[in-house]
Amino acid sequence: MSRPRPEGEPFRTQIRVRYEETDAAGVVYYANYLRYFEVARVELLRALGVPITEVEERGIALPAVEAHCAYVRPGRLDDLLAVDMWLEQAGRAAFSFTYEVRRGDELIATGRTRHAIVSRGDLRPLRAPGWLEELLGRAQGQQAGPE
Amino acid sequence: MSRPRPEGEPFRTQIRVRYEETDAAGVVYYANYLRYFEVARVELLRALGVPITEVEERGIALPAVEAHCAYVRPGRLDDLLAVDMWLEQAGRAAFSFTYEVRRGDELIATGRTRHAIVSRGDLRPLRAPGWLEELLGRAQGQQAGPE
Amino acid sequence: MSRPRPEGEPFRTQIRVRYEETDAAGVVYYANYLRYFEVARVELLRALGVPITEVEERGIALPAVEAHCAYVRPGRLDDLLAVDMWLEQAGRAAFSFTYEVRRGDELIATGRTRHAIVSRGDLRPLRAPGWLEELLGRAQGQQAGPE
Amino acid sequence: MSRPRPEGEPFRTQIRVRYEETDAAGVVYYANYLRYFEVARVELLRALGVPITEVEERGIALPAVEAHCAYVRPGRLDDLLAVDMWLEQAGRAAFSFTYEVRRGDELIATGRTRHAIVSRGDLRPLRAPGWLEELLGRAQGQQAGPE
Repeated sequence: MSRPRPEGEPFRTQIRVRYEETDAAGVVYYANYLRYFEVARVELLRALGVPITEVEERGIALPAVEAHCAYVRPGRLDDLLAVDMWLEQAGRAAFSFTYEVRRGDELIATGRTRHAIVSRGDLRPLRAPGWLEELLGRAQGQQAGPE
Repeated sequence: MSRPRPEGEPFRTQIRVRYEETDAAGVVYYANYLRYFEVARVELLRALGVPITEVEERGIALPAVEAHCAYVRPGRLDDLLAVDMWLEQAGRAAFSFTYEVRRGDELIATGRTRHAIVSRGDLRPLRAPGWLEELLGRAQGQQAGPE
Repeated sequence: MSRPRPEGEPFRTQIRVRYEETDAAGVVYYANYLRYFEVARVELLRALGVPITEVEERGIALPAVEAHCAYVRPGRLDDLLAVDMWLEQAGRAAFSFTYEVRRGDELIATGRTRHAIVSRGDLRPLRAPGWLEELLGRAQGQQAGPE
Repeated sequence: MSRPRPEGEPFRTQIRVRYEETDAAGVVYYANYLRYFEVARVELLRALGVPITEVEERGIALPAVEAHCAYVRPGRLDDLLAVDMWLEQAGRAAFSFTYEVRRGDELIATGRTRHAIVSRGDLRPLRAPGWLEELLGRAQGQQAGPE
């Protein structure tokens, strides 16, 4: 929780909390932040010009191999949450994102996911193909912002 | 709601209500009864000797083409629900089930789903293969009970 | 399925299909259309000036007492679905909506939900308070469109 | 992933993978392991004699403040998964569990959740009441096994 805010401009996705995402405690169910992180990843891919369906058509899957979430304040029904994300690290075989979820100025949750690059058919590890390396480079560049 | 209880012995599956299945109103989220109906269908297939994975390996999918649920009393966190189901109708191309969800003696919900028989690859309608006809026959027989 | 399209202009909500809303059959899981209907209802309330959280603060809950969905074509990952909804009927103690889900011109699903008006604390039936009657009136008016 | 297996006997819960828990990649959606961890926690509470509903009636909530999951092999439709869990640490204000998910001998996922002890009404931190301390003590004792 004490980790410094990542550098560079994040990619922001807005998510409205749905009824079914809350639980009997009256707050967003804890597993749902991982769903929100996924929504943000899919929107980042789209913003970079390669929708998730096209990634899959190219025979690539990017499964999470690790996920972490820290819960700071409860999200609630109908909240408009902003999910900010940063590419943290990108290698030939894996990459990771960090996330911050906010409601206005309030920090709701932070997270991190690490992803493998695998062939969609048999889930075998792959080296990132050129277009994916280039795309991850742009994800990082986007965050570094103009210089 | 006023329909008569179906004839024959139902197939019963017990389901424990999970935290994430409740919502901020403190009750089971309404869409989740359709999940419970699916759990019951999968257990019925298993009881008849053909697990869902084997149905799929045989190239068959049984997608819902219609679903209905009537909500009588709210289900709640950690309730142990009994889902009773009956094969209502079975034809060459489609079949339907009815369901009753109870908590002890209290009726919680009733439902009905209708399913098509399609090829798993392209979702084209199929005539029920022999083994599936036979299986649906046993589903009906099971309900009719011994004579 | 053969029912005529409801009259009047529908209220439209756009929904992007999320990864977790698909299942191993590669399509949108059947219960998720009920989630989409709920998203549409919440957006309709917002458009009419009374967010769902305010409905609840006023001590009212509007639980589904019945839900129906007919599945016409499978929705798929990352589809941008349009959910059109109409107020079908509004009485003192209950009201109902109909829905049509489309991907472009293709009809994906149709549905209907009926809702009770209850006190949020004990879920006892209530007569619709004035503001809710007025709001449902505007929901209908909106659909009837200008004359 | 290289952390040593926790000491003591774990508490085991069996979970059958449901259709809706899979996604279009044909595997268990990554957020669902957090649901499975919750099912295991609720079953542990029950085994220790205090069902989750009774915890809540006593005015206590035990929200996750942190969750981690590492994905080793994909879980699949209809898998019967064993979730083993250990109480890792228990303090006056928080406690944590570790988890291992297996399909037969294969390790599918590992995880860890940390929980705060809060008042259910306002979510303010509490010191663990005596009965909860005692219950967590037994959770640990159970794992240490008979001496």
